[in-house]
Amino acid sequence: MRVGIIGLGLIGGSMALDLRKRGFADEVIGVEADAVNAALAVRLGLVDRLAGYEECLSQSDVVVLAVPSGVAEKMLPDILDRIAAGSGENDCRKIVTDVCSVKERLAGCVQGHPLRGRYVAAHPMAGTECSGPSAAVYGLFDGHACIICDGESSSEDAVSTVSELFSSLGMRLLHMAAADHDVHAAYVSHISHVTSFALALTVLDKEKDEKHIFDLASGGFSSTVRLAKSSPDMWTPVLAMNRDNVLEVMDTYMSKMRMFRDAVASGDNDAVHELIARANIIRRIIK
Amino acid sequence: MRVGIIGLGLIGGSMALDLRKRGFADEVIGVEADAVNAALAVRLGLVDRLAGYEECLSQSDVVVLAVPSGVAEKMLPDILDRIAAGSGENDCRKIVTDVCSVKERLAGCVQGHPLRGRYVAAHPMAGTECSGPSAAVYGLFDGHACIICDGESSSEDAVSTVSELFSSLGMRLLHMAAADHDVHAAYVSHISHVTSFALALTVLDKEKDEKHIFDLASGGFSSTVRLAKSSPDMWTPVLAMNRDNVLEVMDTYMSKMRMFRDAVASGDNDAVHELIARANIIRRIIK
Repeated sequence: MRVGIIGLGLIGGSMALDLRKRGFADEVIGVEADAVNAALAVRLGLVDRLAGYEECLSQSDVVVLAVPSGVAEKMLPDILDRIAAGSGENDCRKIVTDVCSVKERLAGCVQGHPLRGRYVAAHPMAGTECSGPSAAVYGLFDGHACIICDGESSSEDAVSTVSELFSSLGMRLLHMAAADHDVHAAYVSHISHVTSFALALTVLDKEKDEKHIFDLASGGFSSTVRLAKSSPDMWTPVLAMNRDNVLEVMDTYMSKMRMFRDAVASGDNDAVHELIARANIIRRIIK
Repeated sequence: MRVGIIGLGLIGGSMALDLRKRGFADEVIGVEADAVNAALAVRLGLVDRLAGYEECLSQSDVVVLAVPSGVAEKMLPDILDRIAAGSGENDCRKIVTDVCSVKERLAGCVQGHPLRGRYVAAHPMAGTECSGPSAAVYGLFDGHACIICDGESSSEDAVSTVSELFSSLGMRLLHMAAADHDVHAAYVSHISHVTSFALALTVLDKEKDEKHIFDLASGGFSSTVRLAKSSPDMWTPVLAMNRDNVLEVMDTYMSKMRMFRDAVASGDNDAVHELIARANIIRRIIK
């Protein structure tokens, strides 16, 4: 199996490493628009070779689109168009998948495409706050969930191959409608990034007056603010493309913050205690 | 040196372990009001022996008050009173310190006390989201900062001994006015807890409708919400006793959240990108 990966950052680069190591891919071809990152990917040995965009499409059995969501939205219809032009609409066996954090709008942009069945919408739920080829690591996906969305819109063989691909990375597969995925992702991923960004901005603002404020920062602060290091190029389109869900969860979140604020401001310690005790139920979920 | 520790939870228990192991204390006496936790502390070997409150005060060279801030506020004046009654105000060599996250109000409650000089206000900035004797571990404090507050209000020998105590735990010492400490702590510690509590409440609320929402939770979410497991008994009095500072930072934080919300809602991707890029400066601070 020859796998073409478009975008050799954290996710694309880490997939390239493990798909070869674990034998799913005999060869991994990489496409990277940024010349410096392309050279870095080669130096780091992430891929067997680089290729041009069209060369990658024509030579790969499976194409993985691993670019930021806003770019993916533009590229995905073009990829299906080019594949259709290259191999015909009826006997095409090529498969396209992606790794974006927002699924409904991306799937929507190829809805009704003659080759829609060759595309499998996927979201491997793994990552770090780092980005670029140098952030790529072996084993990034082990034990994490990969969501396959709207599987019924894809050909069976395509879903089967993409499932094998992500299983080979050690992921457990879940199936979900794209719209449901986007709601879930807003709650357990997108909001965490926004709260971390806001926390970083809050403390960095204060640092202007209090130079030594970070002397007191300990592990708890670092843990809570870690995601604020995440790339704006990746996260700006995610928040834009999942806007309605993100706004809903931000509003719920801010209402919880206001409940805390009101309880603290009014000195209602029973209410504060009750809110914290309810929040503690999260122990059931995370280790 | 005989050290008495009042409160054998995460902090008191972990101090007990390391103060003996590292040779600062020849003997550690523990006081624990909760009978189950007292028995657990003995079974876990946290202390050499348990003692009653007054026995601990009369027998210890250094008393460490390691109870939740609200309890500490009540106990600290009583401790100084009893020590004064026991050994006289003039030739008292006993030393009292504490580990609370809020310092100005605590120090305030013994201001003007004849034995104020025997008390050293300290805040070892280390911990985990766990609590109780079973959460106590060796090495908890290594490499973290310990803030000594209002050192000029304490006798020199007392500051010196307490500094040795926390240094023996591997901590780096910082000196600060209690009021400054409380501002800093609100920004780099207290707010992180509130944002985590609010995040946990937000997602737990949604779980009522979406049973499988946590299937998608990955490392980023866990990291951001981890502090939401923290004890309400500890955190309710911290937020109450540092109310003005906590409210100030909550208000700043909520204004940052609103900036994000407005930028996302209006589709202003340049503004979102700029906010995230500014938040990224936190890379300079945390690894």
